[in-house]
Amino acid sequence: MTLLIAHLGPPGTYTEAAALAYVEKMARETGQDCLLHPYPTIAKTLQAVAQGQVQRAVVPVENSIEGNVPMTLDTLWQLDELQIQLALVLPISHALLSTAEKLEEIQKVYSHPQALAQCQDWLAKFLPNAQLISTNSTTEVLKNLEREKTAGAISSQRAAQLYQLPILAYPINDYPHNYTRFWVLSLDASPGGTHTSLGFSVPANVPGALVKPLQVFANRQINLSRIESRPTKRSLGEYLFFIDLEADATQPFVQAALEELKIHTETLKIFGSYSVLTAPLDFTNQ
Amino acid sequence: MTLLIAHLGPPGTYTEAAALAYVEKMARETGQDCLLHPYPTIAKTLQAVAQGQVQRAVVPVENSIEGNVPMTLDTLWQLDELQIQLALVLPISHALLSTAEKLEEIQKVYSHPQALAQCQDWLAKFLPNAQLISTNSTTEVLKNLEREKTAGAISSQRAAQLYQLPILAYPINDYPHNYTRFWVLSLDASPGGTHTSLGFSVPANVPGALVKPLQVFANRQINLSRIESRPTKRSLGEYLFFIDLEADATQPFVQAALEELKIHTETLKIFGSYSVLTAPLDFTNQ
Repeated sequence: MTLLIAHLGPPGTYTEAAALAYVEKMARETGQDCLLHPYPTIAKTLQAVAQGQVQRAVVPVENSIEGNVPMTLDTLWQLDELQIQLALVLPISHALLSTAEKLEEIQKVYSHPQALAQCQDWLAKFLPNAQLISTNSTTEVLKNLEREKTAGAISSQRAAQLYQLPILAYPINDYPHNYTRFWVLSLDASPGGTHTSLGFSVPANVPGALVKPLQVFANRQINLSRIESRPTKRSLGEYLFFIDLEADATQPFVQAALEELKIHTETLKIFGSYSVLTAPLDFTNQ
Repeated sequence: MTLLIAHLGPPGTYTEAAALAYVEKMARETGQDCLLHPYPTIAKTLQAVAQGQVQRAVVPVENSIEGNVPMTLDTLWQLDELQIQLALVLPISHALLSTAEKLEEIQKVYSHPQALAQCQDWLAKFLPNAQLISTNSTTEVLKNLEREKTAGAISSQRAAQLYQLPILAYPINDYPHNYTRFWVLSLDASPGGTHTSLGFSVPANVPGALVKPLQVFANRQINLSRIESRPTKRSLGEYLFFIDLEADATQPFVQAALEELKIHTETLKIFGSYSVLTAPLDFTNQ
């Protein structure tokens, strides 16, 4: 049976490139056929797999320059039962796509807020007067970009080829070492691996509420490779915590830590244990 | 001597409202005269006080719905020596300002990315086809908004009065309990108080690198009221951590914890100890 894979679209996004890396891995290792299915927003991509319309969803989680992707963490917390199958790390190299002949003609720049932020110094230097327009993805406007001669879009070289749009400037990201981590999510149980991700809330207004959950891991010498907080959206100073452990939840001592964690948290969600695949440097530019 | 206070401008921003709450407190408690000085970006607001052009800077730190303000944390980490004098918490209630007669006429909505994100559900429901244009502040475009009959801006009721612009919809934030926390920063030593903020990086690729710093506080039952991570921008998976303690660094046992913390961190920056002032609910709407 063909595996349906939802990703943030339309075609040409970095998330699609991550989904293609996953498809390649699946074909190589299991001979599994896959079919990509683009969705207009991160929230809709995740809802598609939660509602069983597709079997997998690929979404961006965090970028090495701009940090976490709030919509992914907030939606994942709301949707129950999604489990991480794999983490994918992709190099990100942004181009300015436009049919304008010179930079000076550009009055508007479209892109996803993460891409706009990753190029903020370049934009301030070369296009200080351009309007920066937030879009749902780096490719949302590309099919209509040709009609706007004074507009540009921040997207990939791969997207430029796909939509046959000229590249006016490249690379334009402020930091050369720009990577994004993606997760492949599914209703299936996670496979186990080097990393475990979880989210939890703690009882409000209890002193030491965050100390106890962290001590559960400290006591067992389990390293946290990442900790993010997101507002609960109930009251300022109340957070959800998203933690990545360098540990496999299928191991008994990690399982014991997670059992103990339940006592010290209000709501605890385990997003699964998985391995990390780093795609080669030229993957997104192929 | 008049105290010069930098804030994110132009006039009418929520940050200016926070600065006014600080001015009122200073006048009441010490009779100090203050003069507000708007700057076009958060980074320039912080640089103004670091370079001694002004004596105080007021910047947003985090919002109860959308979370941290990356530019504040990233700039504060880069600039040395700024110390927190006070935290201010303000209720946030967004309005859509426009000279259009009906919502249906609106084709563009301008605002700061945080304000656009705080109204994302409302925008998706009532203005699904409008372009969302990111600006440096919620008031940046207001003086020219009248010229664009099909544009709106997300800003406060107070800004609508100041720029004499009609309010087309209010309130438009997705969550009613929307608060932003601001910091007042200075080159002066911090006054001490209920909270202490600090930032640190940990040695790269050392297992347990994050466990040890957190254990320093856990061992002493010092509660962390907040932990944020930001990318170091060097490599994916390397973070700076921003922590708020419910403790006063002028107390000896907290000082001892901070001394011990130096051993377990690569770079440690203490942003000071301070108290928190919550402005009344109608403050930003006066």
